[in-house]
Amino acid sequence: MTITADHRFLRALRRESVDMTPIWIMRQAGRYLPEYRATRARAGSFLALAQTPELACEVTLQPLQRFALDAAILFSDILTVPDAMGLGLHFVDGEGPKFARPLRSRADIERLGVPDPESSLRYVTDAVRLIRHELHDRAPLIGFAGSPWTLACYMIEGEGSASFARAKALALEDPSAMQHLLDTLARSVAAYLAAQAAAGAQALMVFDTWGGLLTPMMFREFSLRWLGKVVEQVQAQAPGIPVILFSKGANAHLEALADTGCDALGVDWTIDIGAARARVGDRVALQGNLDPAVLAASPETIRTQARAVLDAYGPHPGHIFNLGHGITPDIPPEHVAALVEAVHDLSRRI
Amino acid sequence: MTITADHRFLRALRRESVDMTPIWIMRQAGRYLPEYRATRARAGSFLALAQTPELACEVTLQPLQRFALDAAILFSDILTVPDAMGLGLHFVDGEGPKFARPLRSRADIERLGVPDPESSLRYVTDAVRLIRHELHDRAPLIGFAGSPWTLACYMIEGEGSASFARAKALALEDPSAMQHLLDTLARSVAAYLAAQAAAGAQALMVFDTWGGLLTPMMFREFSLRWLGKVVEQVQAQAPGIPVILFSKGANAHLEALADTGCDALGVDWTIDIGAARARVGDRVALQGNLDPAVLAASPETIRTQARAVLDAYGPHPGHIFNLGHGITPDIPPEHVAALVEAVHDLSRRI
Repeated sequence: MTITADHRFLRALRRESVDMTPIWIMRQAGRYLPEYRATRARAGSFLALAQTPELACEVTLQPLQRFALDAAILFSDILTVPDAMGLGLHFVDGEGPKFARPLRSRADIERLGVPDPESSLRYVTDAVRLIRHELHDRAPLIGFAGSPWTLACYMIEGEGSASFARAKALALEDPSAMQHLLDTLARSVAAYLAAQAAAGAQALMVFDTWGGLLTPMMFREFSLRWLGKVVEQVQAQAPGIPVILFSKGANAHLEALADTGCDALGVDWTIDIGAARARVGDRVALQGNLDPAVLAASPETIRTQARAVLDAYGPHPGHIFNLGHGITPDIPPEHVAALVEAVHDLSRRI
Repeated sequence: MTITADHRFLRALRRESVDMTPIWIMRQAGRYLPEYRATRARAGSFLALAQTPELACEVTLQPLQRFALDAAILFSDILTVPDAMGLGLHFVDGEGPKFARPLRSRADIERLGVPDPESSLRYVTDAVRLIRHELHDRAPLIGFAGSPWTLACYMIEGEGSASFARAKALALEDPSAMQHLLDTLARSVAAYLAAQAAAGAQALMVFDTWGGLLTPMMFREFSLRWLGKVVEQVQAQAPGIPVILFSKGANAHLEALADTGCDALGVDWTIDIGAARARVGDRVALQGNLDPAVLAASPETIRTQARAVLDAYGPHPGHIFNLGHGITPDIPPEHVAALVEAVHDLSRRI
């Protein structure tokens, strides 16, 4: 048991009492920080930054040097797993991620194997080990991965999309091919997360970025079910490491997400976090849920709105403060400082 | 009473029995149709197309010449009202709408008046009169407007935005200025919709495109409240004309939206339409809710998924079939034909 096992972030994940509400910020290692932009420029490309453990470590730690954040999150990309499966990830400036070899047939899907994280994803576990070493237990480190459905969307479409109509068409027209793909992905994601835990990650988060694009019936079959498999397999392979699920735009499914057995759920700002807590009860901790747009307002407004989130959650254990979505590049770093200070200060008084 | 007063679309809006479920498609006059693209090219610009009654009439009628749709919807833009208020609407290719004179101060807001639709928006009411004449009562005509909150977002931001952080900051930091703006907009939108009804529109729809970006508290204060004012004022100024509200991404607020006194609610595909009906009861008709991505799949899948929506709604009155969002430019027109035929065919048997 290291010094961080009793850290307020990990205590909150276990729904234990804390001295003040822990806070971290989605995409806290990001373009709003001038030091991030400098390292990114030095790296030459986003992928070089994500794939060079020393550089990934450097940007992971940057926000913790500036702000009293309660967790670090591995700097990486959600598409590392399909890349390790051989799809050829690359980034086109201004267009986002693309795969050189998207899935175009059932044969493409059946050819996929589960990558061994310690070989083809070694740059990630190396980064985790280095970050843990450099963190000196100042704060816990969160590892992460994309959800099976989210990865499948990109793998079938070959790039980002507003609707992922091609992935949805496959799910509707050849559900067994889609389930085969999602099963391979669930096992790959679980092994990848377990490897991050073995390398030192103290909590794990799954980003189901595109689950909210589905009808309720498709959400259950193609997103939720496989999130459940990931949770189950991670708990078997990395016992005791808390798992946070964040299914964007899927507030209608909070109860079902809590039933996966995960430890915490991320919640965006379109739901009152007190109402969310009432719905999931004591089964899980909740992480969220300030509207990231609030960070563009004045420090006074940021404080008022942080208080509204804290008040809505109430005096119960199990709240990890966060934004309801990633921080945007236009935010002044001083506004993040104001938020972190407000959350700690206001929750200490509760 | 014209022949269309008993049309299945208007009957469904009144929750009366119908021979088959009526269907129309959001953005049915759009880029997926080659004849639309030809008229658009002839017009020279999107604004010229929207502002020339003969051309707006031509594209409004195009989809009804191809498909057995049960309603026409005025071809126009949601930002006509702020343009008439003097903000200078223009379109930059590939970037969407922009205002030359966005609102930058409280003085800018207080300077705004309620435009007289029959002068500064005459091109719209002229288009409505022409379309009604050319439709020969073949199907009812829907008029529409953007919601006060949605218009305020663009007017403050000056253009589209992923988060509309500037509009949200004003709402949080100077709520009375925002309420002043929303009040002016609600009166303007109501007068505009009533003028469309006077010119011949037989139903009216309000698109609250950005309501779903708000926290529940802000949704009530800055979106819902003003939707309610619009409904109230339209019902006073254009009695008997049904009003449909569509608040995108706001399924959590369906009951409250039904309480505005509107006649129907649009629902996207992330909610089961039967569950939505159970929540709003018999207060309103429901319009939706096929995932537009389904139109990219095969005609067989389109039929299966159309049946799933019809089955979910069940044998109750008050369903208007539609997509949960606008049709995308990549859809083959034959797929729309397959959908319209499937909806009529399958619902006739129910």
